[in-house]
Amino acid sequence: MDHLADASNQNSQPQTQISHLALDIGGSLIKLVYFCRYSDSCRDDYDDDELRSQNDSLCSKRGNSRPVLEGRLHFAKFETSKINDCLEFLRSMKLRIGGFHESTAPLSDKIFIKATGGGAYKFADLFKEKLGVSLDKEDEMECLVTGSNFLLKAVHQEAFTYLDSQKEFVQIDPNDLYPYLLVNIGSGVSMIKVDGDGKFERVSGTSLGGGTFWGLGRLLTKCKNFDELLELSHQGNNRVVDMLVGDIYGGTDYAKFGLSSTTIASSFGKAISDNKELDDYQPEDVSRSLLRMISNNIGQISYLNALRFGLKRIFFAGFFIRGHAYTMDTISVAVNFW
Amino acid sequence: MDHLADASNQNSQPQTQISHLALDIGGSLIKLVYFCRYSDSCRDDYDDDELRSQNDSLCSKRGNSRPVLEGRLHFAKFETSKINDCLEFLRSMKLRIGGFHESTAPLSDKIFIKATGGGAYKFADLFKEKLGVSLDKEDEMECLVTGSNFLLKAVHQEAFTYLDSQKEFVQIDPNDLYPYLLVNIGSGVSMIKVDGDGKFERVSGTSLGGGTFWGLGRLLTKCKNFDELLELSHQGNNRVVDMLVGDIYGGTDYAKFGLSSTTIASSFGKAISDNKELDDYQPEDVSRSLLRMISNNIGQISYLNALRFGLKRIFFAGFFIRGHAYTMDTISVAVNFW
Repeated sequence: MDHLADASNQNSQPQTQISHLALDIGGSLIKLVYFCRYSDSCRDDYDDDELRSQNDSLCSKRGNSRPVLEGRLHFAKFETSKINDCLEFLRSMKLRIGGFHESTAPLSDKIFIKATGGGAYKFADLFKEKLGVSLDKEDEMECLVTGSNFLLKAVHQEAFTYLDSQKEFVQIDPNDLYPYLLVNIGSGVSMIKVDGDGKFERVSGTSLGGGTFWGLGRLLTKCKNFDELLELSHQGNNRVVDMLVGDIYGGTDYAKFGLSSTTIASSFGKAISDNKELDDYQPEDVSRSLLRMISNNIGQISYLNALRFGLKRIFFAGFFIRGHAYTMDTISVAVNFW
Repeated sequence: MDHLADASNQNSQPQTQISHLALDIGGSLIKLVYFCRYSDSCRDDYDDDELRSQNDSLCSKRGNSRPVLEGRLHFAKFETSKINDCLEFLRSMKLRIGGFHESTAPLSDKIFIKATGGGAYKFADLFKEKLGVSLDKEDEMECLVTGSNFLLKAVHQEAFTYLDSQKEFVQIDPNDLYPYLLVNIGSGVSMIKVDGDGKFERVSGTSLGGGTFWGLGRLLTKCKNFDELLELSHQGNNRVVDMLVGDIYGGTDYAKFGLSSTTIASSFGKAISDNKELDDYQPEDVSRSLLRMISNNIGQISYLNALRFGLKRIFFAGFFIRGHAYTMDTISVAVNFW
């Protein structure tokens, strides 16, 4: 979650022509999306291949014979606790924001920027004070559902299932999309029953989300950022930390109730031993257990809510997932297990 | 979870006449229950008032004019990782086990002891080797349901509700007991739909249980035992560690979706900040957040399962609860919130 731009280098850049800019200021992260036309000198600010690929699917490319939007979407993110870096980035980029028509109004003029998330309320005064811009607040759940419906209907191969490390794209009939459960995993988790365009209800959620993974992870490991913790979990073995059914039953399962010996009986249950301190555990094993604990739990609560409302499809979204295979696999396993 | 007996002092005790002994060997704890008749020299091994009160409700007392069972139940517990202390306790007590008739067979004779839990399988050879006794294994869920049904039907003021720090006993009509959801919180959590005597099904569960509270708690605080961690949580403030809706929205709530500013948006979500390390947090605040995270989650999953099967009553049981007011309150709040 390093911020993308080195603000100190921006002053030497030519002015950037941005036709649209929008922000989502969540509890952990600020997400920026902005659109540059090809004639502009917009820098290519992607920091990961997944965002690049998402972007490529949404926009035409320079090399294409028939550009559709004649421009490109750019994504950027900052940690919310580093809001000042974000403000500095916006200032030093000398962004110019307008519609699709040429605009020469600098950012410091009285401009409204679309913004969503709790931070649109929390930091409204700060944006006004530091950049002179007003945040035009939109409701985050409405934006989430509208965006989700748009992507699911308009973008081929947007949705996919994930199980046993296999990603399989799902082609959804737009006439058979609703109702579905949208599970948005940010710092916390919101579960939204979507019944149609603009028709939705937040039916459930859990406080065990991405913020819990990263918050507990920071306290338990020496990791310095979210992605490092996630990367570490790849190499870990949760069985070192979790108490499995087999640990309780002496290596055998509890077949009568469908509990195999490798089922996690108690997350972090092995850490109850007096013999080991935090430093005695490998951070990769701790990270893996944390990820399984939180992903399993989200999968289970999602499944129970889908059952409750008779919803046949659950879509998982949010920064916590971001194409991370093991996370998706764990959530899928949990949905299928319960 | 200190063990109750100081084994080194036992040799000077007279031989103890125990007519019944049974064990439950779980992932975290070994629970012993044994019955002594009044003529015996059984020591009074209670270590907390709650167990004493439970016991008093089950047995007649010395001072009673009409003793019913002519004896008293005793409860003891050991950490499962200290199984050798438990074996030493049993050996040094020179327990004599029989039926209600006088028995002079010492423990080292070939005796069967009723035992349940995974440890009855895992440690069967150890009991045989060290004490010469065989464990007569009973299925733990069957025992749990049978015991639960018995207590709910036979014992006045066994069940109670808990909300806003108010404990209210519930008188249950034995003819209107079933079906109910039994949520047993041990190291992990089992959720059992009980339809009648001996009629039950394990319908759900979660790996976030007492073992998670104590395992994560040990790693995050300097606490040396479960009860110390629980006690610490009394004095803590979870708002220091948890990210609340108000933290994201700048002190306001998200009323549109029924989320007040004090609702926990992300458990441990405040710990994502770069500025604080583990040592910068007070262990009581960490402990409080952990307890809320786990109790809330259990309450939520229980509620969703009760909804799913149309069960009007949920009974929470298991060592994790043990009359701990804040734990019960949190679970109740979660059931009512969702």
